[in-house]
Amino acid sequence: MRIIVTGAGGFLGRAVVPLLRDHEIVATDRVLPADVEGVVGDIADPAFVRDLLGQGCDAVIHLASMPGAAVAADPAQGWAVNLDGLRMLAGEAAKAGKRPRFVYASSIAVLDDLHPETPVDDDTPLLPGSHYGALKMMGEAWLALLHRQNAVSAVSLRLPGLVARPSGGSGFGSAFLSEIFWAIAQGRPLEMPVSPGGTSWLMSVSAAAANIVHALTVNDDALPPSRAVTLPALRVSMTELADAIARHCGQEPQLTYAPVPQIERSFASYPDLRAAAAEVAGFRPDASLADLVATALRQGIAP
Amino acid sequence: MRIIVTGAGGFLGRAVVPLLRDHEIVATDRVLPADVEGVVGDIADPAFVRDLLGQGCDAVIHLASMPGAAVAADPAQGWAVNLDGLRMLAGEAAKAGKRPRFVYASSIAVLDDLHPETPVDDDTPLLPGSHYGALKMMGEAWLALLHRQNAVSAVSLRLPGLVARPSGGSGFGSAFLSEIFWAIAQGRPLEMPVSPGGTSWLMSVSAAAANIVHALTVNDDALPPSRAVTLPALRVSMTELADAIARHCGQEPQLTYAPVPQIERSFASYPDLRAAAAEVAGFRPDASLADLVATALRQGIAP
Repeated sequence: MRIIVTGAGGFLGRAVVPLLRDHEIVATDRVLPADVEGVVGDIADPAFVRDLLGQGCDAVIHLASMPGAAVAADPAQGWAVNLDGLRMLAGEAAKAGKRPRFVYASSIAVLDDLHPETPVDDDTPLLPGSHYGALKMMGEAWLALLHRQNAVSAVSLRLPGLVARPSGGSGFGSAFLSEIFWAIAQGRPLEMPVSPGGTSWLMSVSAAAANIVHALTVNDDALPPSRAVTLPALRVSMTELADAIARHCGQEPQLTYAPVPQIERSFASYPDLRAAAAEVAGFRPDASLADLVATALRQGIAP
Repeated sequence: MRIIVTGAGGFLGRAVVPLLRDHEIVATDRVLPADVEGVVGDIADPAFVRDLLGQGCDAVIHLASMPGAAVAADPAQGWAVNLDGLRMLAGEAAKAGKRPRFVYASSIAVLDDLHPETPVDDDTPLLPGSHYGALKMMGEAWLALLHRQNAVSAVSLRLPGLVARPSGGSGFGSAFLSEIFWAIAQGRPLEMPVSPGGTSWLMSVSAAAANIVHALTVNDDALPPSRAVTLPALRVSMTELADAIARHCGQEPQLTYAPVPQIERSFASYPDLRAAAAEVAGFRPDASLADLVATALRQGIAP
């Protein structure tokens, strides 16, 4: 299979590319680290996208995205990259391949008006509260249309918080969910912008990469007509998470909590998740919290 | 109130503008008929949109849209007008006004995968089957976000088939739903591209215009978080419709039926509609089919 991977230099992309060794890969990103071979370019540039797909493709793994905080700071550029970029890429993929599989990294940010006591399932209405989430939702809608029109075979995966990202400057408001790993592992103090009982949905980057690769071959009929599934993440409270990291590292957590309401609401108010559609289709969470912690610290990118 | 009305020269716009006599209106369209005073321009042109909103606004009534068949023929232009145009207009409105009311003419094309036996209600998932419907759904999502962010006060109304449009060249695949009025009224034969038992959701253009005007003042709390409601249309079969028109005109219908599966599916397979959210918010269908026929023929634009 000839597979185009966008965002290949990013946190998730770098975990996905090594899993595709048996395929012909065209990796791309605006910047590529030395260990990833590929084509440097901007998916918001129509000419680049045309060239990228010009030699055909059997599948696209579309991970490239401006992160949430960056989109909030520049919504017009967020629209250009996260929505126009998707449209161009999917349009060119439809021309370049025979109904190619198109795997789209969507986000749980499409869900937002969540109440900790009301479980989320596959029927929960989408109601993004951020530009980032709204653009992901619109991207899902566009791919669902192209799928119904047999232009591509679309699979949109709503990714939860991926851990453990490198520290600083990632443009994600959820950075504290990764920072907690490194702070405890390195014996540093950390002020958390959420409360100890705040709950998040998490997945190790390795588990996310495995799910992305599974999406390449999942049966068309296994997905709902929206073509989008919320991945089955682990739901953990901050104290559960801190304890698990501390146990793994043999360190004492040095955390203080200073909740910021907007961050608590967006990133630490997640109810139970019943991701039945994704599970039926074979997508998997980390096996346990201990497993997630071990994997996140092994595969994550330390600061 | 200073109200910007886009698409003011269109079928619906021409019925809306006269209802706004007590307000300061800035009517706009790419082409304006002689009886509509306003500004000629293209909402896909950022400079035009900036100028249009430059003197402030209390409300926007956004009716301008490329119709479905035209969007299918040129999806890139459809995206530019129906989605980029909406984004620019809403963005400028947010800057120009103090959280202005933004009334958006969405469409029942956001629903599509309908089964005649399964009623539609406010929980029916959106699943557009056309570029036009997908763009309307994406527009709704963007406005819901801007509403949640307090940039605008959004009201998206999903309009059913509006009757009776002028004959020919409207770019709507549903043109037969208007043509049937004129053919029977004028004693002409007509071949219908759907079956006699096919069912559609219809509204006279006058009733639609009244609902648009109602949306200007409807209470924010009266709408669901999606800010979008499906208007309570009348559901009629083709034979019921033909009989009602014939009764009104004192003519014998001269119809033949040659169903085209794609048209039957998109425009004549509509189940019962339970538009509770819209009704609670005070939106209204035509009072009866006889009423709809009389109004449509009186207010419609004959060929």
